[in-house]
Amino acid sequence: MSPPTGSGPRFDAHAAARILAEVRRRRPLVHNIANQVAMETTCDMLLAVGASPAVVVAPEEAAEFARRADALAANTGTLTADRRAALRLAAAAMRAQGKPWVLDPVGIGGSSHRDAAARELLGMAPTVLRANAGEVSLLAGGHRSALHGVDAALSTQEAARDACALARKAGVVVAMTGAADLVADAASGTWLVAGHALMARATGMGCGATALVAAALAVERDARAAALAALAWLAVAGEVAAARCPGPGSFRVALLDVLHALDDEILLDHAKASP
Amino acid sequence: MSPPTGSGPRFDAHAAARILAEVRRRRPLVHNIANQVAMETTCDMLLAVGASPAVVVAPEEAAEFARRADALAANTGTLTADRRAALRLAAAAMRAQGKPWVLDPVGIGGSSHRDAAARELLGMAPTVLRANAGEVSLLAGGHRSALHGVDAALSTQEAARDACALARKAGVVVAMTGAADLVADAASGTWLVAGHALMARATGMGCGATALVAAALAVERDARAAALAALAWLAVAGEVAAARCPGPGSFRVALLDVLHALDDEILLDHAKASP
Amino acid sequence: MSPPTGSGPRFDAHAAARILAEVRRRRPLVHNIANQVAMETTCDMLLAVGASPAVVVAPEEAAEFARRADALAANTGTLTADRRAALRLAAAAMRAQGKPWVLDPVGIGGSSHRDAAARELLGMAPTVLRANAGEVSLLAGGHRSALHGVDAALSTQEAARDACALARKAGVVVAMTGAADLVADAASGTWLVAGHALMARATGMGCGATALVAAALAVERDARAAALAALAWLAVAGEVAAARCPGPGSFRVALLDVLHALDDEILLDHAKASP
Repeated sequence: MSPPTGSGPRFDAHAAARILAEVRRRRPLVHNIANQVAMETTCDMLLAVGASPAVVVAPEEAAEFARRADALAANTGTLTADRRAALRLAAAAMRAQGKPWVLDPVGIGGSSHRDAAARELLGMAPTVLRANAGEVSLLAGGHRSALHGVDAALSTQEAARDACALARKAGVVVAMTGAADLVADAASGTWLVAGHALMARATGMGCGATALVAAALAVERDARAAALAALAWLAVAGEVAAARCPGPGSFRVALLDVLHALDDEILLDHAKASP
Repeated sequence: MSPPTGSGPRFDAHAAARILAEVRRRRPLVHNIANQVAMETTCDMLLAVGASPAVVVAPEEAAEFARRADALAANTGTLTADRRAALRLAAAAMRAQGKPWVLDPVGIGGSSHRDAAARELLGMAPTVLRANAGEVSLLAGGHRSALHGVDAALSTQEAARDACALARKAGVVVAMTGAADLVADAASGTWLVAGHALMARATGMGCGATALVAAALAVERDARAAALAALAWLAVAGEVAAARCPGPGSFRVALLDVLHALDDEILLDHAKASP
Repeated sequence: MSPPTGSGPRFDAHAAARILAEVRRRRPLVHNIANQVAMETTCDMLLAVGASPAVVVAPEEAAEFARRADALAANTGTLTADRRAALRLAAAAMRAQGKPWVLDPVGIGGSSHRDAAARELLGMAPTVLRANAGEVSLLAGGHRSALHGVDAALSTQEAARDACALARKAGVVVAMTGAADLVADAASGTWLVAGHALMARATGMGCGATALVAAALAVERDARAAALAALAWLAVAGEVAAARCPGPGSFRVALLDVLHALDDEILLDHAKASP
């Protein structure tokens, strides 16, 4: 697939607006087995787009709660043994019901414990894998050096081939985020060129992206369209927020305000603008 | 009890101011077995009103720490088996000493595990139950449909009768929060009509309310007066903060600033204003 | 050692600037076994100074991840049995490799469980102990009354002798924070008179200080110089942020913006200014 060119519209603003309106109308219940580091931010982002978030992480109740939820955001961050069991149970519950779930393999490459959990969950047929370029590359068979801690050590352009290979191999839609985002399935990929560098300086942006994709999937059966819409909401909100903020503290605050105020007009404006 | 009318003062500002001054003077130590999702916000709210927060959640130390604390805020959020054991131990320690504690049954209706834990703790004689209308309705014998995830699916007006019934049955003061708040005991209830819709869009407002009630109880033996004071602090701060904020990100920030600056004048002003 | 005098430069701004530039250049991977209460703030502070944070708290992977990290920030907050095991394993891994690690004994004095864990970890030769005056006093053999919950009940001036005694006894550098900070080793101590009272009203400032010291240690072998530099970054950022903020909510936001923008000029300016 070709690299992003910057010409033409940067994303389908009409689809992004339509799916956002559906989330606001239906308020889907999103079950988060969230990274402890970013639980509040994750829930705040879901509330800002109109979804109804809940964090339920104990193996004793993860499957039962998943059966009541409209979508699941499954994050391997702060992965204790209990958390791993809860992820497995909730994912199985979603699959058994034919409901959508998103896997976020935070921290793979950091330990064999984390790698094994992420690969096991990837084998349980998530609807979407939301990951950075390093995580995608590693899951596609690449080397640990693709990651520096939990951050990608290569660009999404460099990992584009890996994303497509992984989508094919694992039978999932891959939503890979970075300076440019790529949403790929077995057949092809679509670039989304938006966002801002400050997003990499605020904890939890990846976790939030994963949760937003889950919210979009709860109202839109086309997984590629849902993933592209959710990443567009976040990228546009990130651009708008960063334009008025001097640093990552104020950026985090403004991002929530902009997500809350996001509408057709803002999305259409930013679909046309050059980055 | 009659629904809120909007005429007359909306709450007892003198009591709210007096109890706030006492918290600032005595800096009560509030033990939080807090929802993982909102631990930082919960502690920030306690610091903003002058209390001294601590989060101690392990069964190995919950009872011992509770014996040193002035009040306990017991929250069933992110309820693992260990968390449940810690809640039970800390609640028993508070009861044995005759110290106040507040139960926040977050997530009931979501799983039988959560329901059982909340009901067990309610049977341990909390001083105050702080809950939303759906949680109150469900605990009073209502149906799961009173909740949408962790959010109430009915108004506090609709659940007013349930609040009074529950106060009578469980022998607790019920502090039910929503667009209008109701504080009820076995005999009667008092409405507090204040606050702002943005409070429902920021994660952890309920958890924070629970913690503030615990701080108030640490300095005021009249549980109804303490609960009304704490809910008034939060509702007034929410109104003032929302008036200057475009969305939930800036609202969360301003709320802490206003709570920190809250004084007699602001409380008296807002007790008179029409909502 | 003499108390802080306020004359002369308040800290070595050139060293603080040099070590900050090194962190930005090398982006050290800092492993956080962080307090659950302040995980996001801790990571945000590390990102703001240019480090690469990761939170890995499970015993199953703590040692393996520690072997990949450049430094460890080990915090006894929200101390479950698993957390304690992870702290022990990660600390041992750092020591075995000769890599730096910082101990933050949050919550000692609150329970015998917490005390035992903190003392065990202190016996494992941390490079730096980052603590408040009450924690230092208690670890040096003082009484529980040195703490009010997790807050110090005495000043760093009052605990200065304890800090030096503890540095000698435990063979560590003690970085004691408060209205004035003191960095002491077995031989002598250096005062840092900077910061702002609002820092005590925002949750997680101590946890963040610990993490920043770990980041500095990752690029600077002189542990005293590293600790002084990290505490100077935070104190200066705290002063600059507080000057423009009405309360603890906006302060927390501005602090991250200022840390992100911190440069030689700001550090040099504030090294000279009178507090």
